[in-house]
Formats: sequence, structure tokens, C-alpha cells
Amino acid sequence: MSNEKIPYKIYLSESELPKQWYNLRADMVNKPAPLLNPETLKPITKEELSGVFCDALIDQELDENTAYFDIPTPIRDFYKMFRPAPLIRAYCLEEKLGTPAKIYYKFEGNNTSGSHKLNSAIAQAYYAKEQGLKGVTTETGAGQWGTALSMASAYFGLDCKVYMVKVSYEQKPFRREVMRTYGATVTPSPSMETEVGRKILEKFPGTTGSLGCAISEAVEKASKTEGYRYVLGSVLNQVVLHQTVIGLETKAALDKYNEKADIIIGCAGGGSNLGGLIAPFMREKIKGERDYRIIAVEPESCPSFTRGKYAYDYCDTGMICPLAKMYTLGSGFIPAATHSGGLRYHGMNPILSQLYDDGLMEAVTVKQTEVFAAAEEFARVEGILPAPESSHAIKVAIDEALKCKETGEAKTIVFGLTGTGYFDMVAYEKFHDGKMTNYAPTDEEIEKGLANLPKV
Amino acid sequence: MSNEKIPYKIYLSESELPKQWYNLRADMVNKPAPLLNPETLKPITKEELSGVFCDALIDQELDENTAYFDIPTPIRDFYKMFRPAPLIRAYCLEEKLGTPAKIYYKFEGNNTSGSHKLNSAIAQAYYAKEQGLKGVTTETGAGQWGTALSMASAYFGLDCKVYMVKVSYEQKPFRREVMRTYGATVTPSPSMETEVGRKILEKFPGTTGSLGCAISEAVEKASKTEGYRYVLGSVLNQVVLHQTVIGLETKAALDKYNEKADIIIGCAGGGSNLGGLIAPFMREKIKGERDYRIIAVEPESCPSFTRGKYAYDYCDTGMICPLAKMYTLGSGFIPAATHSGGLRYHGMNPILSQLYDDGLMEAVTVKQTEVFAAAEEFARVEGILPAPESSHAIKVAIDEALKCKETGEAKTIVFGLTGTGYFDMVAYEKFHDGKMTNYAPTDEEIEKGLANLPKV
Repeated sequence: MSNEKIPYKIYLSESELPKQWYNLRADMVNKPAPLLNPETLKPITKEELSGVFCDALIDQELDENTAYFDIPTPIRDFYKMFRPAPLIRAYCLEEKLGTPAKIYYKFEGNNTSGSHKLNSAIAQAYYAKEQGLKGVTTETGAGQWGTALSMASAYFGLDCKVYMVKVSYEQKPFRREVMRTYGATVTPSPSMETEVGRKILEKFPGTTGSLGCAISEAVEKASKTEGYRYVLGSVLNQVVLHQTVIGLETKAALDKYNEKADIIIGCAGGGSNLGGLIAPFMREKIKGERDYRIIAVEPESCPSFTRGKYAYDYCDTGMICPLAKMYTLGSGFIPAATHSGGLRYHGMNPILSQLYDDGLMEAVTVKQTEVFAAAEEFARVEGILPAPESSHAIKVAIDEALKCKETGEAKTIVFGLTGTGYFDMVAYEKFHDGKMTNYAPTDEEIEKGLANLPKV
Repeated sequence: MSNEKIPYKIYLSESELPKQWYNLRADMVNKPAPLLNPETLKPITKEELSGVFCDALIDQELDENTAYFDIPTPIRDFYKMFRPAPLIRAYCLEEKLGTPAKIYYKFEGNNTSGSHKLNSAIAQAYYAKEQGLKGVTTETGAGQWGTALSMASAYFGLDCKVYMVKVSYEQKPFRREVMRTYGATVTPSPSMETEVGRKILEKFPGTTGSLGCAISEAVEKASKTEGYRYVLGSVLNQVVLHQTVIGLETKAALDKYNEKADIIIGCAGGGSNLGGLIAPFMREKIKGERDYRIIAVEPESCPSFTRGKYAYDYCDTGMICPLAKMYTLGSGFIPAATHSGGLRYHGMNPILSQLYDDGLMEAVTVKQTEVFAAAEEFARVEGILPAPESSHAIKVAIDEALKCKETGEAKTIVFGLTGTGYFDMVAYEKFHDGKMTNYAPTDEEIEKGLANLPKV
């Protein structure tokens, strides 16, 4: 099909919405290492996880053989309110750059949560409801995941308790109010509601909280409250599974127009959007059917892939969750206070970690100010105001498109635009006012973070 | 076609994007009264308007005979980045209400400006560029129009100067930063940049500004700066013309599925979204081809249709713009400080005013707290967090659907969901905290506002 025929936005029809999620582990030659019980250091069992997580989700978490999981009809019905998401041809950006490259981006921001997080939130809420639970607990930093889970819980009539890092609760009241609109209870963390919260408040009365502490509160609340379970928005394999709806739609849209991607780019925080986007392409690459350059983009301030270590580590600072083998900076690593809250996690999803270790994907880091410059350039021609996280992928997509301009190659570049930046205007303001800085951790800081890995 | 076949979201293809705007005046039996020169009180001429407005837009403003205007290709190309906008079947809301009614809403919030305003902003920016102008000036209150115009100006490389009511500039920094991201200059009004601004600041040093003052500054700046013109986001007939893309798409989507609307509902501020939505339906109604109930929804705090007078009035508090015959509360009417900034204008577009006076449409008022309750109910089942303005239409759509539940009638209800409420969370917070109030102006306040109508 000629270029002229490709619309600005490729919308699949509702009937083309994927009917199954794809479990990349089934096709991996080297499987990701199993999760370990933090006390016994043995592979964790379904029984051990069942007090904290929903049963169906544990199955998805632990299953490395089933290639496809049916997406239940109620989840597909919910998806239909915001999916299939458009695959957008960046005609205006291409023209602005003067590149022969073709640039596409999969846009996941067209829903109230403002990001891809809703893809997994609705799945997790559904399975909780199916299991007859009353509610779910979770933590949220900047608030995207909390918003997504609030929306999903409202839809299925589940109670939703969100522990929001206190500093965000106070400084980002808008996200908090979005969650309340959907009926969630939002508690600033640390709180007096949990033992761990009370302990921390006693020790550090003036603390403004941390994600690690909020996780611990949410897990405690779930495990001690009848009919509640804890749910998580990234890092886990089940989340990557749900997010494969992104990649499956992307591939279907490209196939529809006989387009073949050469380079696939995604930002990498905990890894769920990246894993979801690349899954069906990685499948072809693993099977030798087609080669792709797959690029993970990290902030230089939190370089799990590029400067971390592939080792077993704690997933939370409270050290109560299972151990995962992953690229990590250490659960005690404290990234600089950048404006991409979604990319500040110390580790990386185990599937992606294994793929990276196997040389099946690349990783690069980018500087914060470069990311915002790319975001602004993108917004002015493509209209969409991107989230800082997503803009990491934009930056590298522009870089690759400019390389094509130099070499004259008409490569096809696909990147994930995971969300919108409407709630990130404080960061944009800093950028506009020239007050934004860059920070790369020193070698000493990296070493310090890695010094306390569990002995496995 | 059976109900089962109708998808959640009806997306027209890019090729089905309207190629022309529809000028409802061409088919009206009683034409709207002409704009008058405020000094001579005679119908205003193109020459008199040309120092302030762009030439092509003046033609569109004054033309009451040409039924269709071609949408220039560059505007259609821009439209393709966010249009055709989806017509959404509110399956979840219907189920929640238990109504036999079928509810559809046309969603205009899927773009960074967050509303339908972008439909006219891009047209106005295009014609300014076509005329070889350097830039445009405008005013903005809450910031939706300013954001839309900033995006449109960035796309065409026009300079964009926005006078933002000072209190909004300070209290709503996020909108301001969105505009700056798109390269606009945002000035708090009143400012020292204009004569009118300096005068007001001298007289009222501590003023936090008003929309009327910001309009006057923007008009002065445009008329005194070489290569600049003033543009406006609502009220004018040209804006209604551009917004007919909403109604044309809505009708095309319904026709595609053989659906016939019985009731069409839109919120009414200056009238541009309502006029755009109803235009093609009103055409059939005027021609006697089909009857529709068409309902304008106003806030009880600013009831132009329901308690105003159909008379010539000033469009701006500075009394420098042309006089328009419209339903008005008087240019000096000061509405209560409600949270629907887009519905606080004292008058109503002349086309809609004439149609209402001819009995071709109805108007109702709703209370602010009822509107937010409807907004929240809608958000929890349909996912989208609506703008307070749009939620006025939601409230009446729900009311009509519940009437159907009582009578058992399966009416088809279509309403305009003009935008998202992401920048309105302060209002939602008040609602959640039970601090939101209602206000209807007293008869004395209405009389006072109408006491100073111009003598025409």
C-alpha cells in the first residue's frame, strides 16, 4: 500500500481488538529466573502468594508455558471504551525533521488515567471481583496507577484503597481528586492506619513518605483485611502480560498496511509498557522470523539496564515482596528527584531483564533536559502533550530519525507514547523557566545501591 | 442494523471527515439580525471589521447565504490528528440507569486543548497565516481557548499572544504552562502592555482582572500591532460555522448505523459547541424533513436563554466590539463564581438566539451541584472525566433517559461531551468535600444587568 493511503491515525475496529494476551515467556529460550520467597530463598509458590495477590493473577504471574491467555469478555468490553488505541503516523514530525524515516507511535493516553496503566488495572480489578473480593489496595506515587485502578474499581464496584506518597498527596491534589471522583479512598502515606505506617511516623515524624513505604502499607492493609488483595501496576510479569494488548494492536495495525517496523522504542521504568509493546515483535525475533532493533530508553538518573546488575533483588524497600532476578540498582538506590516519576524504579521486569541479558534488546540513557526539549518539539507539531516518561521514547525516536536523515535510509520507527503530561505541568514550567537540571548518579552511588543485594 | 452491531465508539474514517462546514443561516427562514457598528448603529461592514479580524473570517462572519464552505486542506490535515472524533454509545450509562433509551455522546475532548475549541482555533490560525499575518491575539479565562489557539498557532508558525485573566494566570498555572509549551506568550491581564490595561491598573491597582478587560487588551494589541489580528473562541457566527464539523460527523455516524436521534442536548455558554452540534439536525427540522427535540442547557447562575432578553447588546464589557442581537443578561451582568468558566458569558450566539426565539429549540437550567453529581456518575461508568461545562449536557441527558425509564420509551438521546475536566479538579474537590454551592441570580440582579442595554 502506498504512503498516501496510510491515515494519520490507524484505528483498528472493535472486532480487531485482541482476544488474547500474549505470554512472551512461552517462546523465550532462556526463561526468566523464578521469583523467590524472601525468607526461604526457594521459588515462591501459589499458596505463599495467595494471601497477598488474587488467585488468577498468581497463575498468570507464575505461568511460563502458556503462550496465550484469553481476555475475559468483561475486560474486553471495558477495553472497548478506550481501545483499540490509535497507531499514529507522525507525518508532521517527519516533515519537521526532514527525515526519510517513517515514524509511528502507539498512543495510550486517550483515557482518563492518561496512560497505558488502565490496561492492567481493569484486568486486575476484574480478577479480584471474580474471586468475590470486596476490594483492592495499592500504592501510588505521582498518581497514574492509582487513577487507573480507581477507574477500574469503580467499573466493577470494588472498594479501592490507595496509599499515596504524602508529598504527592499534598503537592499533586489534582490526581488525588481524580481518584476520589472514581470513589477511591486516598490516604497519605505514611499513615496511622497500618503498623508499618505508625512505626515510620514514630521514627520520622516529619517524613513526606516514599513509594517503598506506601507499598508496605498497601500490602499490610491487604493481607490483614478480610476480602482484600494487593495489586501492582508495573514490574510484575502479569502486568507485562496485560500490556501486550499494546503490542498486539500495534503489530495488527502495521500488518494491515503492510508496514514492517525496523526499530521499536519504548521508555523503561518497571518495564510493563515496554514489555507490552515489544512482545509480539520479540516473538518473531526469537523465532528468527524477522529481526528488529528494540531499544529501551532509561533516564540517566535511574539507569537500571545500563549501569545496574543482573541479580536477585528485593522488589520493595520494605523487603516483604518476593525476590526477583532483574537488572537492578539495588532496592536502596535513591534516584534523583526527576520529573519522570514512572521511571524511578530501581529494578526492571524479569522478562525484559532476561531478554536484555540475552542480547535481544538494547538500552540507552537520555538526559532530562533533552527529553523535555524533544517533548516540546513533538507537542508543537503532533499536537499531543506527552508525559515526561513517554518523552524518553520520543527523544530516541527523533535521534534515530535524524540518523536516517544523514544516511538517507527510510527506516520505519515505531515508539510507544504511553501517556499525556497534563498533570506534569510543574515539570514543563521548570523546563520553560530554564530551571531544569540533569543528574547522573556517581559510580559511588551506584556501588552503594548495589552493596545490599540479598545473598542468593 | 441491530443494537449488538453498534460499537462502543463509532469512528468515521479519515475519508469521511467532512469536507465542508455548514452555514445554518443559509437555511434559516428568519435570519439572525446583523451585527451593528457600536458607534453608527448601522450594520457593520467588512471594511470596519478588517482592522481587527482576518479577512476570510469576516466573510464567514457576515455571509448568511452560502450554505457550505470548503474546509481548506491544511485545516483538514490538522483535523486528522484528532478527528473524526468518536460518537460513543453510552452502553454502561444506559445499563446503570436501567433505561430503555439509547444514549450517544459526541466526545470532543481527545486532544490536548481538551475541548472542541481546537476546531475553530485551527481554522482561525490558518486564515491568519493565509493572509500573511505574523500573529494573533486573544484572551482566555480558564484557558481552554488559549490552549487551543496556542496549539493551532504553533502548527502554522504564527506568533500567539494570550491575555489571561490575572486570577486564572496565578491560580491555574498548569493551563498557562500548556500554552507556553506551544510557544505562546501568556500575559496576565490587566497588563502594562496596553493603554486599557494601564488605565485599569491605575484605577484599580489590586485588580485580579476580568474577561472583559482581557478582551479589550487583546483587541487593542491586535489593532495597534502591524501584522496582528484578534481572534475569538465563541459567540461569533464564524466559530459556530467551524464547529459544525461536530454535528456533521455526529449525523454521519448515526446515519451509518441507521440511528435516528430523537433528542439532541448541548451545554450553552457562548453557543459555539451547541450550534455546531445541532446544525445539520436543525437543517432537517427547518426544512420539515424530520423533527428533533433540541435542548440547550444553561447553568442557573447564568441563564441567558431562560431569563435573558432578546435584544441588541455589547459583546464585551469594554463596549468596543460590534453590537449583536442576542439573548443576553446585559454586558454588565456578573455571574456567580461558578466552576464552569465556559458557561459564564452574558450573551448567546445570534444564530442560536434567533432559533430559540423562533421556538425551534428549548432551553433549561440546571444547578451546579446536580451537574457535578451527574459528572461523577458518568465518569464512574463511562470512564471519561468530563469538564464541568460538558456535564450540564450529561445532567439533562440522564434526566431524559430516566423519563424514558418511567414511560418505557426507547428514545435515542444524543448529547455533546465537549471536553475533559483534567484542569478542573479544584471544582471536583469542592464537590467531594461538600463545599460546593448553588446560585441563581435574583430578579433584581437580572434587571440590573439588563438596565444598560444599548438603545437601538
